[in-house]
Amino acid sequence: MTETATPFDHDVAPGQAPPAPATPLVPPAEPPLWRSAAEQARTVVAGSTLGTLATLTPDGDPWASLAAYGLLDDGSPVLCVSTLAEHGRNLLVDPRASICVIGPEDGGGLLDRPRVTLAGVAVQPGGAEAEQARAAHVAAVPEARIYVDYGDFSLWVLRVRRVRWVGGFGRMDWADAEGYAAAEADPVAPYASGAADHLNDDHADALLAIAQALAGYPDATAARCRRIDRYGLDLLVVTPRGGADVRVSFAARVESADGLRAATVELAHRARQRTGA
Amino acid sequence: MTETATPFDHDVAPGQAPPAPATPLVPPAEPPLWRSAAEQARTVVAGSTLGTLATLTPDGDPWASLAAYGLLDDGSPVLCVSTLAEHGRNLLVDPRASICVIGPEDGGGLLDRPRVTLAGVAVQPGGAEAEQARAAHVAAVPEARIYVDYGDFSLWVLRVRRVRWVGGFGRMDWADAEGYAAAEADPVAPYASGAADHLNDDHADALLAIAQALAGYPDATAARCRRIDRYGLDLLVVTPRGGADVRVSFAARVESADGLRAATVELAHRARQRTGA
Repeated sequence: MTETATPFDHDVAPGQAPPAPATPLVPPAEPPLWRSAAEQARTVVAGSTLGTLATLTPDGDPWASLAAYGLLDDGSPVLCVSTLAEHGRNLLVDPRASICVIGPEDGGGLLDRPRVTLAGVAVQPGGAEAEQARAAHVAAVPEARIYVDYGDFSLWVLRVRRVRWVGGFGRMDWADAEGYAAAEADPVAPYASGAADHLNDDHADALLAIAQALAGYPDATAARCRRIDRYGLDLLVVTPRGGADVRVSFAARVESADGLRAATVELAHRARQRTGA
Repeated sequence: MTETATPFDHDVAPGQAPPAPATPLVPPAEPPLWRSAAEQARTVVAGSTLGTLATLTPDGDPWASLAAYGLLDDGSPVLCVSTLAEHGRNLLVDPRASICVIGPEDGGGLLDRPRVTLAGVAVQPGGAEAEQARAAHVAAVPEARIYVDYGDFSLWVLRVRRVRWVGGFGRMDWADAEGYAAAEADPVAPYASGAADHLNDDHADALLAIAQALAGYPDATAARCRRIDRYGLDLLVVTPRGGADVRVSFAARVESADGLRAATVELAHRARQRTGA
């Protein structure tokens, strides 16, 4: 580390093994609030309108292709595909399909990006569902207004049977169809990146107090917010013993984006009370 | 259009049908140089290290999942997958696979992004190819150095049998395995976005002269470079009759990124000679 290095410059370079992490010196103040794989999956899928579809060619070969989607209220993806495209023709022969959606980069490695596979069977919706599907697709993919009613395009709803969420290297879990349909996408997600930047830029002292008092690292010398969600913060903590990734939960689940600031302020306040700062 | 609108503010809003385009008033000066689907595909695939793989589950269902890749000299993707991941287990049961790679956004709609599907059969390389595959993967995905030799990870080379290139809405073509293997990725591609920005920011007058003298739009009032590649420029031309997308070819194929500036200067020089400006 050079004289001008920041406390975070010992982050792992690509291809290097990470240094031994620092372990908590005291138990964290609160056990982490639980985030289910179903919620994580709903959040990733709600955060995009573009995925990659896997369908079957007439020979039964797997076919990967780009597809835009909207979402029904239960999280079912709605596709609008043309029979001029392979995937449109494939679905007419065999409606089995899955779609992979990739979450935003968050400064980690390539394979640290969260992603979700929704697997099931595609159906052409009828009746009221056809209207809902059309509205959901066009709301998510405005340009579809131009072609949604073309004769070669059809709406398909992917009836989700299995859900695979991968949160990054080595972090993964399954969700079932019922759990996925019932789960709620994190309402904080669209604002999370900006909120983390704000904390890092303007409230580094509060993050440090949180790391020292609530996360189990009284010897922390710096802390950076890597991610934020409705349940809490992921911090990268710097100590003389090394760096550590640690989770700090809010006092309660944040119910809307408006509640994010209050929840963060409460954490900082509680941390400062404990440290007497 | 308001007083402060730029000439490009009549671009199509999402979901609106485009206005009737202006047609060339005179034939363009040169027929466009040809770009094959195989070259386009090689260029898209060379421009990323992250794709979505389609494999088959033991039930024969299509499974879409994120995969990082490197490339052998013939453009074959090299994957490094774990048997702890579905796609790793799937390949052991049935090696048929395809990978979809998405090109960069270029300011168009969601489905204007270029993308490629490479379909074929994955094999675990042996002998000298195993070394080449390992080197290619790690060069493209440096973090793989950490896990490439773990016992649960294996290298797979996708032997490409069919190539589907989609250049945007309604622009698509097939390439065969031999054509794909023999084609060269555009060496200009990594610099294209910056070069287009530079032309738009600093050389709007040259772009206008090119549109007027070489692209068939003597009534052009403005021109913006939407894309640039080794064969030429894609311009968005503004005329009193409406807007138009038009292709202008360089005098000859650019053979390296270093040749891009000279080729653009030659175009502008030729245009100004014709207009007498």
